[in-house]
Amino acid sequence: MAAGETRELTVDLGERSYPIYIGTGLIIRIGEIFKERAIPVKSPILLVTDSSVADLYADRVEEVFANAGYTVTTAVVPSGETSKSLEMLDELIGAALEAGLDRKSTVIALGGGVVGDLAGFVAASYMRGVRFVQIPTTILAHDSSVGGKVAVNHRLAKNIIGAFHQPEFVLYDLDTLASLPLREVRAGLSEVIKHGLIWNADFVAWCDENADKLLSLDSEALGYALYEGCKVKSIVVSRDERENDLRAILNLGHTIGHALEAVAGYGELLHGEAIAIGMVGSARLAAKFGYSSEIAEETERIFKKFGLPVRIPASCDPEEIMSAMLHDKKFSEGKMVFVVPTAIGSVEIRNDVPSSWVREIVDELREGN
Amino acid sequence: MAAGETRELTVDLGERSYPIYIGTGLIIRIGEIFKERAIPVKSPILLVTDSSVADLYADRVEEVFANAGYTVTTAVVPSGETSKSLEMLDELIGAALEAGLDRKSTVIALGGGVVGDLAGFVAASYMRGVRFVQIPTTILAHDSSVGGKVAVNHRLAKNIIGAFHQPEFVLYDLDTLASLPLREVRAGLSEVIKHGLIWNADFVAWCDENADKLLSLDSEALGYALYEGCKVKSIVVSRDERENDLRAILNLGHTIGHALEAVAGYGELLHGEAIAIGMVGSARLAAKFGYSSEIAEETERIFKKFGLPVRIPASCDPEEIMSAMLHDKKFSEGKMVFVVPTAIGSVEIRNDVPSSWVREIVDELREGN
Ligand SMILES: NC(=O)c1ccc[n+]([C@@H]2O[C@H](COP(=O)([O-])OP(=O)(O)OC[C@H]3O[C@@H](n4cnc5c(N)ncnc54)[C@H](O)[C@@H]3O)[C@@H](O)[C@H]2O)c1
Ligand SMILES: NC(=O)c1ccc[n+]([C@@H]2O[C@H](COP(=O)([O-])OP(=O)(O)OC[C@H]3O[C@@H](n4cnc5c(N)ncnc54)[C@H](O)[C@@H]3O)[C@@H](O)[C@H]2O)c1
Ligand SMILES: [Zn+2]
Ligand SMILES: [Zn+2]
Repeated sequence: MAAGETRELTVDLGERSYPIYIGTGLIIRIGEIFKERAIPVKSPILLVTDSSVADLYADRVEEVFANAGYTVTTAVVPSGETSKSLEMLDELIGAALEAGLDRKSTVIALGGGVVGDLAGFVAASYMRGVRFVQIPTTILAHDSSVGGKVAVNHRLAKNIIGAFHQPEFVLYDLDTLASLPLREVRAGLSEVIKHGLIWNADFVAWCDENADKLLSLDSEALGYALYEGCKVKSIVVSRDERENDLRAILNLGHTIGHALEAVAGYGELLHGEAIAIGMVGSARLAAKFGYSSEIAEETERIFKKFGLPVRIPASCDPEEIMSAMLHDKKFSEGKMVFVVPTAIGSVEIRNDVPSSWVREIVDELREGN
Repeated sequence: MAAGETRELTVDLGERSYPIYIGTGLIIRIGEIFKERAIPVKSPILLVTDSSVADLYADRVEEVFANAGYTVTTAVVPSGETSKSLEMLDELIGAALEAGLDRKSTVIALGGGVVGDLAGFVAASYMRGVRFVQIPTTILAHDSSVGGKVAVNHRLAKNIIGAFHQPEFVLYDLDTLASLPLREVRAGLSEVIKHGLIWNADFVAWCDENADKLLSLDSEALGYALYEGCKVKSIVVSRDERENDLRAILNLGHTIGHALEAVAGYGELLHGEAIAIGMVGSARLAAKFGYSSEIAEETERIFKKFGLPVRIPASCDPEEIMSAMLHDKKFSEGKMVFVVPTAIGSVEIRNDVPSSWVREIVDELREGN
């Protein structure tokens, strides 16, 4: 296990503030961290993970807890988005009851954003709320582990059943990322870069220069990038915990991105891939509003460098994309609302986007055009 | 519609404070109250009710909203405890989506505690929380509508999946109580008297003197009793929103009561009936701790006067009752914890109750003994 710097970041939310630890070799320290935080040994822990991650890391986590004197029950859900369901909530509540979890117990998410969102909602609703800890194992989860949004999906809409439930702490052990498929690495980095694009031009430049290190999971580079990504999200969330205004800037690229995910069929395009295309689209909107066309060129160049798609798959019908966007809940009262960059590193929210512009961009970006 | 005094009470929870309006002829004023509170007309409302209440009062509520310019969709769930389920949550979230509810929308509960708890959890989790309004139509719901506890049941445990979600306001229209079956009236009054027993001896004496008026649903008496009952609960909840200590006194009679409900089979004994027996049991514990035996005599006399049971049905096995109690989550770490009266109108929490005493009382209270 490579010894490296551990970075620590506080998500500042008053009495709900919590730390994020980012570094290598952290899992073996989790028992110690539980004790420091006076988490009672007598109260059983539920460790929620998915079928891919369980085989790789669950034993290690269980062992550390056993050595520290804690009782852990592991619940494994199938890998993939379909596990974010009320059926799985039902099963996990059953598992929590059978394991004897009480009001002082902790639910831990060991996995990517799927496990984080699902286990987080279990923690939010079991006995009306118990302690929650995140051990993210994907790069994308740097995004989902900050901000306290937890949820499951409904047949008719994603993330529609949920809560705001802040974790006790987040333990980002970079060692777990080594097993992540390259496609998931790229998709996760797409959200990291997004955090740069909305807030910090220097960080975008740094990502650009360090693309190779990031893609090869160099611990030092990755630790820094995840720290910076979490930091941007955490600043935004601290200023607007409940998504009243500022938090909307985090949706850069997501209006088009969500529509693409839905039209391509969930799972065809990874979330990070869909929003990379979406960010290129938003940057082109910027040009239509009179901002420099270099923003779009730069955005496209960087995502390409990271091996991310920057064109809409030819299989996606433009009409369907447009109608999916019109159903997106981010449109308030029928007008088209978009997060639009004004330069690399800063954005504004526009609620005056003509749908004809969006349609033009969708057409331009379609593969083969 | 009898014109009478409208009582107003504020549940004091800082920025989550809310008013309870108690009186006759209130439903026709709900549109006006929505407007006063600047609840947007454009955002659709979901009215949740059960099959018994829908036929009686849903039309009236819908009409008032229509006149005020609001769009209401009514969702009817089957009457009874089984509707407090994740399946029903799933259906209601679907109904909310189909009705186009947005983040500024309101979910209204029109019904008893079942509808209140279920619709409240829909409001707490839809889009991670939307506005919630209660129109309680049972006497028992004076209890469930104060304090913000909302939940559904799991196969393995009652009320285990939930949230704290305070309503925007509570509108208690006494006119709706006229259709309540007498058995439900008595069971609801059991919790009203409980609020006196834990906090206010004068109010217990008043209930005793006004039993006939209460049982015949005299508006003036009922309005006062519900006001006083809500007030006690609201004081307790204000001092301990998240059930850390004081709130436990609200469980007077509930340890034995919950065990009886479980052993008799849910639905056999109404909740209010089970806790009446439980309160008689707790009062007998008081005598064992050396407090006056008059507490038990008075408690028993009052519940009898209200036509409530004060003996354990012969069909309930004492062994099963004891083992149900040992599984109750209110036992912290194996010791037997009980709320015990020290006089009419005050209680203490004892965590040193020998299980042999409880067993003796269970035996004494069994019918036929
Ligand atoms: N709550 C939020 O604020 C928020 C923000 C962004 C995304 N999300 C949610 O996050 C989810 C996507 O997250 P994700 O991309 O991490 O998806 P994921 O959890 O499905 O993980 C992606 C895949 O990688 C596998 N995997 C995870 N860790 C691994 C590892 N270390 N080694 C090998 N394989 C591993 C998983 O089994 C899965 O197949 C979506 O459901 C999205 O809605 C939530
Ligand atoms: N959240 C809390 O703090 C809290 C507190 C106490 C109880 N509760 C919950 O409340 C529930 C019990 O509440 P309840 O006793 O009101 O039960 P309920 O909602 O099932 O109502 C009792 C019966 O009366 C019918 N009914 C309701 N209003 C009527 C009316 N005006 N006229 C005719 N019939 C009517 C209902 O259809 C039902 O059959 C339980 O699920 C319990 O867990 C919650
Ligand atoms: Zn995203
Ligand atoms: Zn009760």
